Amino acid sequence: MAHDIQIVTEAELRRIVSLDLTTVDVIEAAFAALASGGVVMPPILSMDLPAAHGEVDVKTAYIPGFDGFAIKVSPGFFNNPLLGLPSLNGLMILFSAQTGLVQSLFLDNGYLTDIRTAAAGAVAARHLALAVVETAGVIGTGVQARLQMQAAYLVRPFKRLLVHGRDKDKARVCAADLSALLGIEAEAVDSAETLVCSSQLVVTTTPSRQPLIQAEWLHPGLHITAMGSDQSGKSEIDPKALMAADAYICDRVSQCEVSGELEAALAAGIWNKGRPSELGEVIIGQKTGRQRAQDVTICDLTGTGVQDTAIATYVHAQFPQAGTILQA
Amino acid sequence: MAHDIQIVTEAELRRIVSLDLTTVDVIEAAFAALASGGVVMPPILSMDLPAAHGEVDVKTAYIPGFDGFAIKVSPGFFNNPLLGLPSLNGLMILFSAQTGLVQSLFLDNGYLTDIRTAAAGAVAARHLALAVVETAGVIGTGVQARLQMQAAYLVRPFKRLLVHGRDKDKARVCAADLSALLGIEAEAVDSAETLVCSSQLVVTTTPSRQPLIQAEWLHPGLHITAMGSDQSGKSEIDPKALMAADAYICDRVSQCEVSGELEAALAAGIWNKGRPSELGEVIIGQKTGRQRAQDVTICDLTGTGVQDTAIATYVHAQFPQAGTILQA
Repeated sequence: MAHDIQIVTEAELRRIVSLDLTTVDVIEAAFAALASGGVVMPPILSMDLPAAHGEVDVKTAYIPGFDGFAIKVSPGFFNNPLLGLPSLNGLMILFSAQTGLVQSLFLDNGYLTDIRTAAAGAVAARHLALAVVETAGVIGTGVQARLQMQAAYLVRPFKRLLVHGRDKDKARVCAADLSALLGIEAEAVDSAETLVCSSQLVVTTTPSRQPLIQAEWLHPGLHITAMGSDQSGKSEIDPKALMAADAYICDRVSQCEVSGELEAALAAGIWNKGRPSELGEVIIGQKTGRQRAQDVTICDLTGTGVQDTAIATYVHAQFPQAGTILQA
Repeated sequence: MAHDIQIVTEAELRRIVSLDLTTVDVIEAAFAALASGGVVMPPILSMDLPAAHGEVDVKTAYIPGFDGFAIKVSPGFFNNPLLGLPSLNGLMILFSAQTGLVQSLFLDNGYLTDIRTAAAGAVAARHLALAVVETAGVIGTGVQARLQMQAAYLVRPFKRLLVHGRDKDKARVCAADLSALLGIEAEAVDSAETLVCSSQLVVTTTPSRQPLIQAEWLHPGLHITAMGSDQSGKSEIDPKALMAADAYICDRVSQCEVSGELEAALAAGIWNKGRPSELGEVIIGQKTGRQRAQDVTICDLTGTGVQDTAIATYVHAQFPQAGTILQA
């Protein structure tokens, strides 16, 4: 029995969906749902294609009350730049949660992932950072460095922005781009320590396997969101900082244990505070995040299937006529 | 960077792809590749959606030397018939194995799965059944009962066909359909024992959780393909029959251990012949299947990602202009 399937390309998605307070609210609702029970989120399916220096991940999640569930396929092929192609591609497929029929194919090449990932940073800042942030800092100079600062600015409109990266030229370009985009002062700094010590809100966006932020640099009122580490072996923050913080919050404990900052802290035997709280639990008031202005808070984002299901469901509901409609 | 994506609907796929010796050869090559090393086939991603009596499975496999790899999403929503919809839907996505770019979206609602599953039955019959089969029998009366007999007939053109099912009316309709389709004598039989004892080639196609074939019914020359059991708890053949057979062959040992006939035999402590051989190993001559005319052989098919990658790669290579081409 044929039914309508919506097919939307990356170019069309870029026209209709953007990183704004609406998408931040969509992702906040997803985390709240994750904490409210009934979510089914299987472990990530992951396949290596060593011959092509490639890998592919598949994520999904079912959220009670949502009309659809997304399956996201994210290939990463790291020889692609040699061919003039981007490393990251992929698509999201939205299925009806009532019938399993395909509703939408979002051929987004990772664009919706970029949006939902940055939006999670805003959600973390909204619930964990100081109410007033004067200076924000970002470590890393890529797409997520830019998007994370745009997202944070939506909920904490800071006056000044610092950028640190291994490549000083890229850091300068990133700072200039963000200065123009947000209309605020932004500068590149050579030292991660200077950046952390001068900022109330810091976001790390790197694939680092060595901590970039030391525990000694924590200072009263600081909030850090670590969104770079999303695979075993990656680590952006000194494991001792997790213990030293007043609140260390995971997007999903089961993922942070194996692919987030928590992995190294557990491996080193440093973490002994039991099960960390999750961002959704803080959102719904089941757990506490920041309790005092002087608290240091850290949020560990590994990326969850509920974010994919939430953004895909939102796009289909909001723009049902976008793209091409195919009878299939 | 936009590139061409091929989108083919079920109706179009039914026009261009059929169960024939070509598709059987495609699936045989996939099994041979599986035995030749280098295949990457991660465990199946599986998610339950209890609120809708639904489930969704995701399978994939990378085969060295193949231009693409498929990711198949198979939702099963068992309240759908109440809504006038089929229970099974889904799609296959073909990616370039060199770049990870999406090449084709096959909106097949399980049609390509039906074909590749039946083709595997033909491959098993080709390599394990007697060279001459007079009578074939099928247990089950659904889509796969029909397709498995069509597939077997391609490689072993039998003269007579028996059908057994719990619903005698459905068995009669299935026998009549197959008689018309193959132009041979076909009849429904009330007893599974009669069917097995009268046939040289038997295929079981049911979701049974109780053995339908008893070990005592095995007779010289018999080949059985069990393709129904594909989930933990399902079982179509008495576990003692696996031990009694001269050759028990898995499509993939790691899958048969947890979701095939082997599961029950291992759980009951009956299986003590070590690691069974795989169909691909028999195809490439690495292991032996049938050695003598009087041997009893059993093949356990749980369904593998290499079959999906093989059929999807074939369809794209053979019919690159089929369907709709989208710039995305």
